[in-house]
Amino acid sequence: MKFTVISCCCVITRLILFHSCIDICRTLSLVLVISWVSGGFRYFNSVLMSGPSSLSLRSHTCGELRSHHLGDKVTLCGWVQYLRQDLFIILRDFSGLTQILIPQEEGMPTGEIEVLAEDVEVFNVCRQLPFEIKDFIRKSESLRMQYRYLDLRSSQMQKNLRLRSKLVMKMREYLCNVHGFVDVETPTLFKRTPGGAKEFVVPSREPGRFYSLPQSPQQFKQLLMVAGIDRYFQIARCYRDEGSKPDRQPEFTQVDMEMSFVDQAGIMSLVEGLLQYAWPAENGSLKVPFQTMTYEEAMRDYGVDKPDTRFSMKLVDISEVLLSSEIEFLQSAVSQPGGSIQALNVPRGAVRKETFPVLLSVSATEELLKRTGAKPGDLLLITAGPLHTRPLLGSLRLQCAQLLESCGISLRNPSAFHFLWVVDFPLFLPKEDEPGQLESAHHPFTAPLPEDKQLLYTEPHKVRGQHFDLILNGCEIGGGSIRIHKASEQLHVLKNILKEDPSLLSHLLEALDSGAPPHGGIALGLDRLVSIIVRASSIRDVIAFPKSFRGHDLMSRAPDLVSDEELKSYHISVRWPTEEGEMK
Amino acid sequence: MKFTVISCCCVITRLILFHSCIDICRTLSLVLVISWVSGGFRYFNSVLMSGPSSLSLRSHTCGELRSHHLGDKVTLCGWVQYLRQDLFIILRDFSGLTQILIPQEEGMPTGEIEVLAEDVEVFNVCRQLPFEIKDFIRKSESLRMQYRYLDLRSSQMQKNLRLRSKLVMKMREYLCNVHGFVDVETPTLFKRTPGGAKEFVVPSREPGRFYSLPQSPQQFKQLLMVAGIDRYFQIARCYRDEGSKPDRQPEFTQVDMEMSFVDQAGIMSLVEGLLQYAWPAENGSLKVPFQTMTYEEAMRDYGVDKPDTRFSMKLVDISEVLLSSEIEFLQSAVSQPGGSIQALNVPRGAVRKETFPVLLSVSATEELLKRTGAKPGDLLLITAGPLHTRPLLGSLRLQCAQLLESCGISLRNPSAFHFLWVVDFPLFLPKEDEPGQLESAHHPFTAPLPEDKQLLYTEPHKVRGQHFDLILNGCEIGGGSIRIHKASEQLHVLKNILKEDPSLLSHLLEALDSGAPPHGGIALGLDRLVSIIVRASSIRDVIAFPKSFRGHDLMSRAPDLVSDEELKSYHISVRWPTEEGEMK
Repeated sequence: MKFTVISCCCVITRLILFHSCIDICRTLSLVLVISWVSGGFRYFNSVLMSGPSSLSLRSHTCGELRSHHLGDKVTLCGWVQYLRQDLFIILRDFSGLTQILIPQEEGMPTGEIEVLAEDVEVFNVCRQLPFEIKDFIRKSESLRMQYRYLDLRSSQMQKNLRLRSKLVMKMREYLCNVHGFVDVETPTLFKRTPGGAKEFVVPSREPGRFYSLPQSPQQFKQLLMVAGIDRYFQIARCYRDEGSKPDRQPEFTQVDMEMSFVDQAGIMSLVEGLLQYAWPAENGSLKVPFQTMTYEEAMRDYGVDKPDTRFSMKLVDISEVLLSSEIEFLQSAVSQPGGSIQALNVPRGAVRKETFPVLLSVSATEELLKRTGAKPGDLLLITAGPLHTRPLLGSLRLQCAQLLESCGISLRNPSAFHFLWVVDFPLFLPKEDEPGQLESAHHPFTAPLPEDKQLLYTEPHKVRGQHFDLILNGCEIGGGSIRIHKASEQLHVLKNILKEDPSLLSHLLEALDSGAPPHGGIALGLDRLVSIIVRASSIRDVIAFPKSFRGHDLMSRAPDLVSDEELKSYHISVRWPTEEGEMK
Repeated sequence: MKFTVISCCCVITRLILFHSCIDICRTLSLVLVISWVSGGFRYFNSVLMSGPSSLSLRSHTCGELRSHHLGDKVTLCGWVQYLRQDLFIILRDFSGLTQILIPQEEGMPTGEIEVLAEDVEVFNVCRQLPFEIKDFIRKSESLRMQYRYLDLRSSQMQKNLRLRSKLVMKMREYLCNVHGFVDVETPTLFKRTPGGAKEFVVPSREPGRFYSLPQSPQQFKQLLMVAGIDRYFQIARCYRDEGSKPDRQPEFTQVDMEMSFVDQAGIMSLVEGLLQYAWPAENGSLKVPFQTMTYEEAMRDYGVDKPDTRFSMKLVDISEVLLSSEIEFLQSAVSQPGGSIQALNVPRGAVRKETFPVLLSVSATEELLKRTGAKPGDLLLITAGPLHTRPLLGSLRLQCAQLLESCGISLRNPSAFHFLWVVDFPLFLPKEDEPGQLESAHHPFTAPLPEDKQLLYTEPHKVRGQHFDLILNGCEIGGGSIRIHKASEQLHVLKNILKEDPSLLSHLLEALDSGAPPHGGIALGLDRLVSIIVRASSIRDVIAFPKSFRGHDLMSRAPDLVSDEELKSYHISVRWPTEEGEMK
């Protein structure tokens, strides 16, 4: 029998501990004795025991034995990680490794703890695996996905999934037990939402009629507030058909919450408390309240609405400084509506030594250095043009940070977690393909700031919404808002501002008209949050069975062909593409 | 303004308590004073407060105030349940009712507790509702579904959803915190399973390729055991397209569990402990272990594999008694293979007094009465024929019980919860349409009883499986098994016994061949379990937004038509039925 990797269960009825330090060994000779159930395998003391070995065939996990177990009889179950000279087995399970000594005539064991095998039962043998289950083994992403059940055995993936489970459990405790939230499951087979181009469709058995897999329980959670549930949460599965976007998944998970009779500050406090409560202890404690910044400030200082505040390198408006210079393209840039000149100082970013253009006056040069804080060796990046040059510089800021770090210049503390609220977003934005038209910056249910409410009827493009984004290390991990709770206001937004057909949301409008309380909520992207906490490079590393970036399950080969016969009951047929294009 | 039902928030800055008993009032004059935050609405003390009023605009719920709050200033939020003579408002929220006194020149208040309103803000007004939110109002099922957000305001639906949330939370505590289970989310966009005729399909953007919405995470949970997760659970959304079956839902929820290195007794103990831990206190405590019965015993005594053990009325085999009678059809029935004569005694079931057929001898009559325990006024139902006359009598047994109870004869304690394990099921059953062929009694992954293992290769129809069903009051609420963990055995079952194409499960077979540990698990039907606990007549009463029995969402009108244009990106088109039948 080949032993490279076998699956086995070792039943050991005697444990002998060998210490390199004989003195310790002596002091540990008196230990508890776990009662041994004779007659083959027995699960251990089902009613009284708890923890990871309760109810199972083992008495301890492979990561649990310590020197105080000296003399105990134990049963371990696990996989053989190594077999050494047919003398030692290193047995592995999710919790760690234990060295097992197979009795020999002679042999001098080493290591702090070893288990002397009295009885070994091999439960299963094993083919040659496509890769070994060792942390240092590198394997391709597609191989990991194809053999996900092996990939998940790695200590990092075990850690990720277990941390995720514990984090979610703590969140539930906080919401249910501390704040009286009600966990309500909402349907995933629902009606197509207006403009829901990214929603998967599910054919029903009625010809031409389809369910839709919703992108979030948004409508349901608002309906639950109308229903008097008062405070709702759900760890909700959501669906988004985005084709091939990097690091997106067709199904993903949100921590979804909604409260009645609450304001923006209440929801923000709730989330701060939630994260503080659930935060893994090994990452230190979280300080609350989190920093808050307006959308205006974020765009001004960082050129983006989700700034990475772990490092400074802020954008600096230097329009005034250079306005008086005689450089023509700068002057023309500033003279445009909303035009400005922006600078970004990249510390130690100058690879080659170059002087400033001589065109600049000495006083302008001095002012520039003063405002940007630039020192010799720094690199000054300058953009001139309309306001949307800021996002350009904001994106350059992040690329520079990566470049600097790849050159060994530390900018961001890799163990830092910078939470940030961004507030006071515009409620509407001009449509990209039709700038005369407005679309919701987030979704059509967001309420305006109370002080901007009247502008809804006069200058809607100026209205700011009661929307707030939660940012962690420059990633958006949540978005929330106070919702419109009056039917007339919601109808105005849908019909007059967004020019959408309100009949598609008639059930929601009717619900608002049935005594909807003031309410608001938020959804946190759980996959993204966990991936940042465990410092994973992709959300795939915190999802048990993720899809590839083309939306495939490489293990089972989904999506798959379905016979025409099977499709008949759903009254659909496949349009096979022809050489001329789509078949009619 | 019409006040029949309006939605409002009453902000009360002063609370004065009036007692009918003046003496009590005096002793209660010293009470705590909640600090009042001036300056309009403020959520209360976000960081320090917990419970159902934390973080919100209110200080108390409408069900919370008691006489010891005398003199407190409170803020209440809710809906107006009644308005009496413009003098009193009965304010309602999820937790109860409070009477508010609107200050008048005079007026003698009654009742134990009242709140004197100092300030009232109406947050929203309300159209005339389709039905009033009062417990005694009867409304049709379709009206309830169409206006579900109003129906959920009823105290019964509030109780059901809140109990469900608490029950699930306790289950999670038990699994995560007590027994170290890992909560793992598994995909719902998956590959079609062999013979998965009841699986919804989801078209992908690749022509002809479909995902499938799985009926359970069965494959994933087994793969997680191969992956060394050791103990997994998930409150899992499952999908089943069964068309119009009464009291089924196209999406439903399972408490899904799986463990490694465990045997059947271990899983059963786990579930008993789980239910005992999570059981709502108001229903008394659960006694464990639950009763256990073999499949053979259940069929023999109750004619069904999910017996309602809240009442006796067992089936009695009277073949011997009547074999010697000269009644020809009885004799011929008994002479068939597996033939027998069965009796069921329905106590007090005889409406008309009738004597036994004279054909029977005195000794046979006496023996019959003795074996069945029948007394004057009882009804004896007798079947004769092959073994499957037992299910007939089993079903008659339940119908008789209902009939007796509708006549006011109490048989079953309505507050009793009878849990029962049924074990030792046959592993395979003859196919209904092809009795020479075998199909899995439950699913193809169930392991045989160890003592029947060799029969797999010789007489598979005789093999009993390590499968166990959990029955509550005659309803199946869970099914579990120990799984096959050896690839060779699984392949034999799929290929040689079930004659299925094993290539569709090649990923699972490969996984078993990668060192799969012995493992087993169970899934509990959460909707059904909760509906029995709250004594709901339908699972729709424990689901926030259920579908109608035709699979429709009556509120949003899903499933809905989708434009041909939108279907194009999924490479499908609708086959509209023609008069001649399905369009080709």
